[in-house]
Amino acid sequence: MPIVHIELLEGRTQEQKNEMVKEVTEAIVRTTGAKEEAVSIVISDMSKGNYAVGGKTLVQK
Amino acid sequence: MPIVHIELLEGRTQEQKNEMVKEVTEAIVRTTGAKEEAVSIVISDMSKGNYAVGGKTLVQK
Amino acid sequence: MPIVHIELLEGRTQEQKNEMVKEVTEAIVRTTGAKEEAVSIVISDMSKGNYAVGGKTLVQK
Amino acid sequence: MPIVHIELLEGRTQEQKNEMVKEVTEAIVRTTGAKEEAVSIVISDMSKGNYAVGGKTLVQK
Amino acid sequence: MPIVHIELLEGRTQEQKNEMVKEVTEAIVRTTGAKEEAVSIVISDMSKGNYAVGGKTLVQK
Amino acid sequence: MPIVHIELLEGRTQEQKNEMVKEVTEAIVRTTGAKEEAVSIVISDMSKGNYAVGGKTLVQK
Repeated sequence: MPIVHIELLEGRTQEQKNEMVKEVTEAIVRTTGAKEEAVSIVISDMSKGNYAVGGKTLVQK
Repeated sequence: MPIVHIELLEGRTQEQKNEMVKEVTEAIVRTTGAKEEAVSIVISDMSKGNYAVGGKTLVQK
Repeated sequence: MPIVHIELLEGRTQEQKNEMVKEVTEAIVRTTGAKEEAVSIVISDMSKGNYAVGGKTLVQK
Repeated sequence: MPIVHIELLEGRTQEQKNEMVKEVTEAIVRTTGAKEEAVSIVISDMSKGNYAVGGKTLVQK
Repeated sequence: MPIVHIELLEGRTQEQKNEMVKEVTEAIVRTTGAKEEAVSIVISDMSKGNYAVGGKTLVQK
Repeated sequence: MPIVHIELLEGRTQEQKNEMVKEVTEAIVRTTGAKEEAVSIVISDMSKGNYAVGGKTLVQK
């Protein structure tokens, strides 16, 4: 039943996302004992204008 | 004050969403005693490439 | 595959929560065509000190 | 390490967002003692069809 | 209608939280034109064992 | 800058969580090119009464 949300800066390819969810799922299964088919992952692509660190969005850096 | 987030696969019509938020709000009001106007709902449309179960995104299935 | 998060003020009984997830799930199934067993719901209990509207937490009201 | 998510109705300019993350970060630094560079903010733009209050999406109002 | 979630390491006092939500709300009102009473804020207190940076939880640092 | 949220049923040990965040971070670094120190992970422990699948909380199953 693990539910995973991953927020990434936009620009990753679908292939990278496919690889990422495969490996993250395996890591969770290995370390928590959850069943593989019970792991859900939702990816959010953040635009540079919608992400900020230290008070500045990435379009300002 | 209930705040509800619903993540759905993209492809639902606006009409379906309108119907969904109406019925979900009624269900919460009925069962928790919250006031109708205090229920907020945010819908997120997930693309098939951004949602994975069992280590595979839905574009791989 | 709908994933639902519901943030409620603490104080609802387990019975109210059971009733709520049953009715919310039915509402989503009815209006979106999702399968019942594919609907996941996570409830978060907010304390009054951790929830604010209009710039004041509920412990201040 | 504070992580902040702000959901806004779409339509704010990038300039408004830049100003908002600057002032929100300063507010958190001032009141919690967190370091400025440790504050992350993610903005989500909600469409009117994906946000509901009182059982109605904003496209219905 | 802005909905704000702030995840903080546990240990802030209620007074700090009260001050924080007041100032964050003011910052959002000032920069986006939202009405004060329309801003909701939910705070989550993260324990050190449930927060990680760089692959290590804070209990390991 | 990846921000990861993992919702798990309560009952995992701190050691399991430490191992999980280590391996999940490595998986994200390997597949997306993000820097290790830029990956933040927040874990939420869900109680059985606050998690439901198919319209029933886990305390009902």
